[in-house]
Order: sequence, then structure tokens, then C-alpha cells
Amino acid sequence: MGQTIIEKIVSIHADKEVFAGELTVVNVDFLMASDTTAPLAIKAFQNMGGVQIFNASKMALVIDHASPAPNQRIASLHDMMREFANEQNIKLYDVGDGICHQLMIENEHAKPGQLILGADSHTCTYGAIGTFSTGVGSTDLAGAMLTGQTWIKVPETILININGPLQPGVSAKDIVLYVVGIVGIQGATYDAIEYAGSTMSDLSLDSRMTIASMSIEMGAKAGFIHTTGLELAYAFEHVLPDASATYKRVIDIDASQITSQVAIPHSPDNVKSIEEIDEIEINQAFIGSCTNGRLEDLHAAANILKDQRVHPKVRLIIAPASRKVFLDAVKDGTVEILTNAGATFLPSGCGPCVGTHLGVPGNNEVIVSSTNRNFQGRMGNRESNIYLGSPAFVATAALHGKIKNPQLI
Amino acid sequence: MGQTIIEKIVSIHADKEVFAGELTVVNVDFLMASDTTAPLAIKAFQNMGGVQIFNASKMALVIDHASPAPNQRIASLHDMMREFANEQNIKLYDVGDGICHQLMIENEHAKPGQLILGADSHTCTYGAIGTFSTGVGSTDLAGAMLTGQTWIKVPETILININGPLQPGVSAKDIVLYVVGIVGIQGATYDAIEYAGSTMSDLSLDSRMTIASMSIEMGAKAGFIHTTGLELAYAFEHVLPDASATYKRVIDIDASQITSQVAIPHSPDNVKSIEEIDEIEINQAFIGSCTNGRLEDLHAAANILKDQRVHPKVRLIIAPASRKVFLDAVKDGTVEILTNAGATFLPSGCGPCVGTHLGVPGNNEVIVSSTNRNFQGRMGNRESNIYLGSPAFVATAALHGKIKNPQLI
Repeated sequence: MGQTIIEKIVSIHADKEVFAGELTVVNVDFLMASDTTAPLAIKAFQNMGGVQIFNASKMALVIDHASPAPNQRIASLHDMMREFANEQNIKLYDVGDGICHQLMIENEHAKPGQLILGADSHTCTYGAIGTFSTGVGSTDLAGAMLTGQTWIKVPETILININGPLQPGVSAKDIVLYVVGIVGIQGATYDAIEYAGSTMSDLSLDSRMTIASMSIEMGAKAGFIHTTGLELAYAFEHVLPDASATYKRVIDIDASQITSQVAIPHSPDNVKSIEEIDEIEINQAFIGSCTNGRLEDLHAAANILKDQRVHPKVRLIIAPASRKVFLDAVKDGTVEILTNAGATFLPSGCGPCVGTHLGVPGNNEVIVSSTNRNFQGRMGNRESNIYLGSPAFVATAALHGKIKNPQLI
Repeated sequence: MGQTIIEKIVSIHADKEVFAGELTVVNVDFLMASDTTAPLAIKAFQNMGGVQIFNASKMALVIDHASPAPNQRIASLHDMMREFANEQNIKLYDVGDGICHQLMIENEHAKPGQLILGADSHTCTYGAIGTFSTGVGSTDLAGAMLTGQTWIKVPETILININGPLQPGVSAKDIVLYVVGIVGIQGATYDAIEYAGSTMSDLSLDSRMTIASMSIEMGAKAGFIHTTGLELAYAFEHVLPDASATYKRVIDIDASQITSQVAIPHSPDNVKSIEEIDEIEINQAFIGSCTNGRLEDLHAAANILKDQRVHPKVRLIIAPASRKVFLDAVKDGTVEILTNAGATFLPSGCGPCVGTHLGVPGNNEVIVSSTNRNFQGRMGNRESNIYLGSPAFVATAALHGKIKNPQLI
């Protein structure tokens, strides 16, 4: 019986052949927790009687969600993470190092074919490099910290074939919003999504991360992108699903039909084509997050904002996904272009995406954002409205002070 | 009867000759309020029946203290400022533009010989360019918004003559900490401080701003630096005090005797010479604020951190004083050097100096900071200890993970 790529990876980590629907125990390759979840995971680990984690070289902690600390309580939680990391000899990424998911790939903690747990919903991002990675609760993570294993119900797979060339001005974010619009926010609950096809094979790593990250916006356990066409700094094996694998659903998409896509308030699956939306005036524009805070995203914004000024009524804030992304953007002139245009750079981290501090919108304000969620209150104010789109969409709106089609600029 | 420089400036704005101790009404040249004080000032203005401010071209509002907004409440206050500025046609500096005092000088709202009120204690910074500027409460500011005037008791003047060359590694911050150590935090209450002498005449504008800004740390109404040797982008008149002026106190300082100075917890006048302090381990290092967040300050840090890495247990965070400072530092390679060394850049603004968000220390943590106040709780946590010093002092401690003499590096 043929296996999906997900069944293959899970089987390798279960040391036996398993198929969708089966419950199995698997060995994990790496664990990750952020400042939102690590304090709970550490407490749960200690409550379970945990003294030493199963393998200190297989875990990282990241301070990225509320960073630098916005108050004394969170500063204390950060300190607790630092102490635990120090005691356990675990790698800790501190203030300004970057967003957990970015760091996991940048620093090669996640690799193709691995099985990784992270106590953050966007852990599915590592599917960009052919990793089976999934978000878990802090208690599940604590169990894995203790044993190096977790239980998993092998997910069914939805195969999404995306073929054909992209229109000018259309990017990975438009692809994934288009997919979320079709599948819906509960359309892939506990399934894996496998993205295949020629359009995917042509995408950069940055773009693949954008798409994999938003798999959770359909409820998916994991988002998996074939490693075909992927270049990494190290050698790796391209594993393919069996031709006879069983899929729950197959969706075929003609990429050439995808225009600039926008998720309007208040759900990421409330997706419209840009032509369907009025030229709404905006107040704040944000480029960042694990979904769209990488060099390619900053380049897309810089292409639009070079020698221009952001509209005087708009605040454009940018949080690079990591210190490395920021540094690369400093070196190649992107930070200069965007700062000249009036952008404000935030420290690398999750920034306003999570509504902790660093850019909570005002009441009745309209926000355009390159992030992944626009639920009511997501950015810290239930009275604001968030429109999600590509970095080009955000930069175009920032320039004009209102939503405009980036493909027409 | 001879006049001090302060008496001269106040007299010009009172349209009559006045001397220290007299109460008089003066015309103001410019008004400023930040997001900490503007909302109160606007309400007071409206409660006074204010409809239009006396002169829309003579006021600026600045969003810098809690920026970008850390929560919904402050986001609403920011929006209130934006609305008022828009209604009144007042210049508003928004998120990321910079620290109010930096913007006042950078954008030539403050000029030599002017009389300026700001609803922020460090308004005395413009004394760096020979302005009589002073911090007032929001209600006093509201009165001036309505009338273009305020009342003032003409302050007595303490003359501080600083002569001679500086030791290598010693900067303006060391000078002013040395002075604060002598005068004490209440030693100049309601007085003006006039800084004179060859050392002062040789200082850059950035350095002069450092010194003027900390005049309030002695309780001074204003800090005034002679414009001798000052270069600005526009022509201005050098006004000098009369030789027969009456001073409350005269202090003579031999600059060559000043070593690296540190204000230890919990007061800015708790000043020690670096040799008197143990090599205390530190957790966080901050370079920024209206006192030391300028290009010269970033250069001082970059000189120490070039091709080095910040100590792994230290978080080095840097908030440039304005977007222009940041942009200049991007262009000349300083941001690259500091980011390479592991520094994290915060958006231009007051940053952790005011303890609002953006870097609240943990309990029992030790902070080295280039800012102006180390009162208990200043950075948002009463359980932390803040050591104030020059940017070179901060960078040196960040590099070594403990307090070290920057003059010996």
C-alpha cells in the first residue's frame, strides 16, 4: 500500500509502517518553545518530575513574542527561560535574535525529513523544507522534553497541486491566501496539506515558508512542501510520496489565475481578490511575522517604496524575521530605502502580529498587514480592522494611504 | 546692572529688563508636548475653553514615549493627538520619527536665543544651542497654547566653567555626571545652569545636548551652553552674558581631571569614578534616550564593538534618537557594525529609558544605560539596578559582560 510523504516521515520516526488514522508513538528530532509557551512547558516538565531533558542538543527556546520585555511580569518569565536554558545547556535565542520559526530554519535546527514539535501554532512553517513539524500545547511539549517522544495520530493528507506561472506582482502570500480561501479555516483540521506542482518548485525558500506557515490557518496539523527545486546550505535527500498514496482530497490550482489576494476582517479565510475591495483608507501598515518578514518580503516592499514616501497619515512598521534578515537588509541597502521612505524598524521578533506591544492599533483604525491572522483583537484591539495581504499589498497601501492593487502600480 | 545670559533672553521675551527673582510674563517661541503629556494638555486646553492654539506654526506634538503603542489605551491617546494636530494644523511627529527633544533641534523648531516650553522635564536639552527652554506641566502648557505666553520667575544662574582637554575615552556624559555629582540632584532647583569654558566650546552639538539634557537632574529650570564654537545649518547671533552679571554660584572644573563617571543605583547624583566600582556582572545594556542616542553615541559604541561580539549573557539594545540618526548610522556602516556585534535596534523613541515597554529589566538584573535617570523602578522594575554612564561605558560592559573601565580598553 502506497504511502503519502507524511506517512513516510511518521513511519520512520515510529520505527514501523503506519498509515493515516493510526495512533503511534514517534521519536522527535527537535523541540522548540517561545516565550509565550516555554514558561508553561518548563513548569509542566518540572511537575512531571523532569530533571534533565532527553537531549540538550535537541531543543531551543526563543524569546520573540513579547520582546524586549514589555513589563516586569514578562521580564521575569524571560529570566526563567534563561535560567532553564542555562541549567539544561539548551540553546536560547534572546531578545532581537528573531522569530522562532525563522531561527529554526536559519540555524538548521529543522531539516528535511525530520519530525519536530514546537509549542507554537506556526511550527508548521518548517514544512517549507520538507520537515514534518507541528504545533503542540505546552504540556505535550513537556512530555516530549522528558522522553524524546510523543504520540501522534497519523494525519490524512490534502494534496494541493499548483501549476503554471504567477502573474507579475503576485507572490507566495497570494497563493496561500487563495488556498485558504478555498479550503477554509477548518477545512484541513488535523489533516496534513501537501503542496506540489511546478509553481511550488520554482519558489524560493522565503516564499515556501510563507505558504507552509499559513497551513495552520486551515487547521492543518502540518503543511508540507516538496523539496523539489529547494536549495539549502547542506546536502539532503529528496523524499517523494508513493504514486499510489491515498489522499483525502486533491485540489488543482492554475497559478496564472491568482491575482493579488486579501483576507478581509475578521478571518484569514475571508479572502477576496483585490478587485473586489474598495479603496479603504488605512492607518497602519505592518510587514513582518513568521509568514512575511524575510529578505524577499523587504525587497518586495523596497521595490514599491524606493524614492517614495509613505503616505503622511500612515505608520509603516517593519519587524524583520531575524537579526540576520535585518543585517542582510542593512548590507544590501534595503533598510536605507525603507527608512528613507519613512518606515520604522522594530526589533526582530513577532512585533504587532501578536498584539503584545509594539504597535497596538487605535479604535476604528484600519491595518494592512503581511501577517497570518486578522481575527478580531489579534493585534491587541478588538475595535480595529485588519486586512491581510502580501508585502507588496502592504507597501502599496502604505504609499497611497489606502488599499490599492499592487499589480497595477 | 549686568545681566546673565538667562536674564537677557527672558528680558527679550518679557519686553522689559528683568532680573533673577522677578516674576514676569513672557512670550514663548515654541511649545512641545509628547504622548505622555499632550493628552492632558489638550484636555486642559479644551477645559479652558480653547478652540484654536495661539499660533499653529509654533507647536509640535511628538509620539515617542510609548511608541509604537503598547496597548489599546495608549493607542487611543495617540489617536487623540493625531486628531488634535490635524484639527489645529499643528506638526505631529508620529511613531518612529524620534525623541521629542532630538526632533526639536533637528528640525529647527528650537533656535538660539529663543524661549521654549515643553511638557517634558528634559526640555532643557535645547540649552545645547543657546535656547532658554524649560519643562512645564500639562496645564501650564495648555495656558501657553491658548495665549502664547507664560509666567516665569527669572532664575538665578549657577556658572560652571569647564576648561582643559578631556582624557581619552572621556566624553560629554562623563562631564555632566561629574557635574551632577558635585551639584547634587537638588543643588540647582529652580536655577539656570550656564556651562562655559574652553572644554565646552570644543564640544560637538551631540555632546552639548548630552550635557544640557541632564541639567534637570540637578533640578535646574534650564541648562544653557554658550554658542561659542557651535555650528548650525543656519546663521544665528552669539549672545554673551554681561561681564558684570551676578551669579548665585561659580564652579570651576579642570576637565583633564575627569575620568569615566558612573551614577550607581538609585540616583543620578550617586556618581563614582569608574575606578571606585567593582566589576559587577550585567544583564542588559541600553544606548539611547535624549541624553545619549545620537550618531556620536552610536559611533562611540561601534568603535568598541567593531568586529567583536556582545557577551552572550548580555542583551544590548539601542534606540537611535531619531529616524534621521538611524538612517545616518545605516548609511555610514554603524548599524551594520553594531548589529554584527549582536545589538538589537529599537524604533527611534524613548525606548526602555521610561519603562513603558521595549526592555523592562527582570528582577535583580543589572542594567548599564546611557540614559539620564536610574531611580528605583525607572525602567519599569523596582527590583533592578541601573548604572548610568557614557555610550563607551555601556558598550564596554556589554562586551565584557561586566562593568569595566572604557578608558583602559
